Amino acid sequence: MNKLFVMGMGPGDLGLVAPNATKALAVCSDWVAYGYYLDLLGELSAGKTFHDLPLGEEIGRARLALDLAAQGKNTALISSGDIGIYAMATLVFELLDMQLQGKENHPEWLGVDIEVIPGISAMQAGASRVGAMLGHDFCTISLSDLLTPWETIDKRLHACGAGDFVVSFYNPVSKKRDWQLNHARDVLLQYRPASTPVMIGRQLTRPEEEITFTTLGELDAKDVDMFTMVSVGNSDTKHIVNGEKHWMYTPRGYSKKL
Amino acid sequence: MNKLFVMGMGPGDLGLVAPNATKALAVCSDWVAYGYYLDLLGELSAGKTFHDLPLGEEIGRARLALDLAAQGKNTALISSGDIGIYAMATLVFELLDMQLQGKENHPEWLGVDIEVIPGISAMQAGASRVGAMLGHDFCTISLSDLLTPWETIDKRLHACGAGDFVVSFYNPVSKKRDWQLNHARDVLLQYRPASTPVMIGRQLTRPEEEITFTTLGELDAKDVDMFTMVSVGNSDTKHIVNGEKHWMYTPRGYSKKL
Repeated sequence: MNKLFVMGMGPGDLGLVAPNATKALAVCSDWVAYGYYLDLLGELSAGKTFHDLPLGEEIGRARLALDLAAQGKNTALISSGDIGIYAMATLVFELLDMQLQGKENHPEWLGVDIEVIPGISAMQAGASRVGAMLGHDFCTISLSDLLTPWETIDKRLHACGAGDFVVSFYNPVSKKRDWQLNHARDVLLQYRPASTPVMIGRQLTRPEEEITFTTLGELDAKDVDMFTMVSVGNSDTKHIVNGEKHWMYTPRGYSKKL
Repeated sequence: MNKLFVMGMGPGDLGLVAPNATKALAVCSDWVAYGYYLDLLGELSAGKTFHDLPLGEEIGRARLALDLAAQGKNTALISSGDIGIYAMATLVFELLDMQLQGKENHPEWLGVDIEVIPGISAMQAGASRVGAMLGHDFCTISLSDLLTPWETIDKRLHACGAGDFVVSFYNPVSKKRDWQLNHARDVLLQYRPASTPVMIGRQLTRPEEEITFTTLGELDAKDVDMFTMVSVGNSDTKHIVNGEKHWMYTPRGYSKKL
């Protein structure tokens, strides 16, 4: 009763969805998500009530999920990837916080029993498909300046460069945003070589998956779309070729001991 | 044949293990892991040959896994969390790289069919248990200077501070390392307030789980052990209290639209 599961369904392959998430879906009468993810979950969805709000209506989805749970319906708020990473989970707590501050008028939300279930994020799917890109210290940066001032993003790009972190770019481009990724590349080129390995992973773990092994110098926003994860190695990341098989990995430093 | 699955089993709760990982375990005759993780997998392990090498013998485990697979045995190299994040996956590719460079004498390794399966990492388990700490740009830093020079770690701590990233500390302390976490705290205090929310999560998702909600100013290595994940918020991260329930979340900036 009054249960809200906030859950990430991973990058696309249902074989990467946590059993805890699948179990939670089964006990929920109402699923709230962007339609594309509902499609992915096809076989699990018989008999459920869908609330399919379009991209861009994130706040509406979070409100609806809290409302449904407050009405006593077991509810699942669903995203791809890990819902805690650049996704809807934080918005649920932002709304709860507004209510606690008296800036919303939904005291019933405070009685909702919230449980967050993590999922495999796109950076992990990409890193595993190419080998082990996240083998050492890394960061993530969203290149979307819809909600974050560009100055903040730019500051983080420079910090990433100065710290020599492996970096995964979320929201690298969109129909309306095409210059940020090339700017990010140019910032990183101030700190690491043009030969630094870069993975471009499109539709990761899905039937239409395409993976491109390239370099920081060759990275170009024209090769990237909204379904793409871009991960840039640090100054130690290696691109190796074994016959027809390519791999990228970031060493932790064991070679000193080998 | 000659298949090596390199897989992460998540933080501990078997309900967070990807079905792809469970399926791969079933088709492997030989499992290579540190014993603690083999124990976690109890019910899945009937009829398997275990190769239980102790902590500290990471290189031996990676070599053994490559050797077994090269001998034609379907083999699973297993770690907790995501094996691609500060774990064994990168070491497999480091060994393969050494062979490709002619610095090893195991040409049979080049015929091994390697597949990496990602898992839920401790930072994700922690973030989800307290709400949504990883809701915006974040980084991870290992505080172990066994393989990484301390100067590199210190540089990354400053970069993390300058970039105002949420940060998760892997390997925060060990029996022999007790000062690094307090040093990391002191570096971050140069960049963000002492009131910054901090999560200390011990034995996350396991029966003995303990979660402490504290602040950067109060963070102390004496409260942390080898089974603990420490995540420090950015300057926007909030700690909210709803009755007896505590949450921490890092907003993406939707509040401007609320």
